Amino acid sequence: MSWLEITLRPIGFVRTPLSDEEVKRSLGGVEAEIEVLEEFEEGLEGIEGFSHIIVVFYMHKAQGVEAPLKQRPRRLLRYGVSLEELPLVGVFCLDSPHRPNPIGLTVVELLERRGRVLRVRGLDAFDGTPVLDIKPYTPSRFVKEFRIPAWYRGLLERVREAGLKDL
Amino acid sequence: MSWLEITLRPIGFVRTPLSDEEVKRSLGGVEAEIEVLEEFEEGLEGIEGFSHIIVVFYMHKAQGVEAPLKQRPRRLLRYGVSLEELPLVGVFCLDSPHRPNPIGLTVVELLERRGRVLRVRGLDAFDGTPVLDIKPYTPSRFVKEFRIPAWYRGLLERVREAGLKDL
Repeated sequence: MSWLEITLRPIGFVRTPLSDEEVKRSLGGVEAEIEVLEEFEEGLEGIEGFSHIIVVFYMHKAQGVEAPLKQRPRRLLRYGVSLEELPLVGVFCLDSPHRPNPIGLTVVELLERRGRVLRVRGLDAFDGTPVLDIKPYTPSRFVKEFRIPAWYRGLLERVREAGLKDL
Repeated sequence: MSWLEITLRPIGFVRTPLSDEEVKRSLGGVEAEIEVLEEFEEGLEGIEGFSHIIVVFYMHKAQGVEAPLKQRPRRLLRYGVSLEELPLVGVFCLDSPHRPNPIGLTVVELLERRGRVLRVRGLDAFDGTPVLDIKPYTPSRFVKEFRIPAWYRGLLERVREAGLKDL
């Protein structure tokens, strides 16, 4: 196996009637469905016992290796934060979709399972996004006390002021 | 782009002097280093402001698509749980490394950054594991109230009795 290339394949796809623009506009994510491929349906058995799951997906519309390694969280511009207020930080400090491996990771609420379709709340992925993995949200993902940098806290407050709950 | 194959590449590698067996034995993960490749070092700028990060890695020693879709959390056998007590559940309910896409995801404590090396606590990955992405642990990853199934809770209690903190 070469270390330079790792090959993965979708286990399912995101389905939402919303446009990419509508998904982008919602900072807290949207209600959407994850349609798992038939061949992987058995892997869902028991998932309905979890209130939250972690969805790992491939952001197929993002820049990958060409993405700049330092970025500003520009999507905050629309919440009244000015460009000068946005810090220029490393991409591994941000949730930017434009990153060396465009992997998305979102904790969502699992509303319902119908066979191989999971209805979830809080997903920030476009219609048609390939899903790579689904993991349960368990106590090991839960950190009671954690620290975020002052610049990040400041941005969270700005967004909250704009009436939204989370970055 | 074909949907059937998604190609990613390592942004760095896990470094630990511990053997695979020692890493496996530690349910809460171990102290280890993540050595980010030189070409991605700039992407780390500012990461030291976060107390916790999420490491996404490729479990190169695990079975991938050949992994059974229903599994028992067998590593609990060593904590005095009997095979009969282990439920047979879908792989997406488990943290098993043997899954359709062998992607690992661990929340770790960031102890120190030295240039392109991150020293972390709580990583359950073998020496040499390719790292795919690093994300900050932010309030959006944090779910205050969540529900896990009774069988999972039961297993957590068994493991806690055995003197360990988490699954």
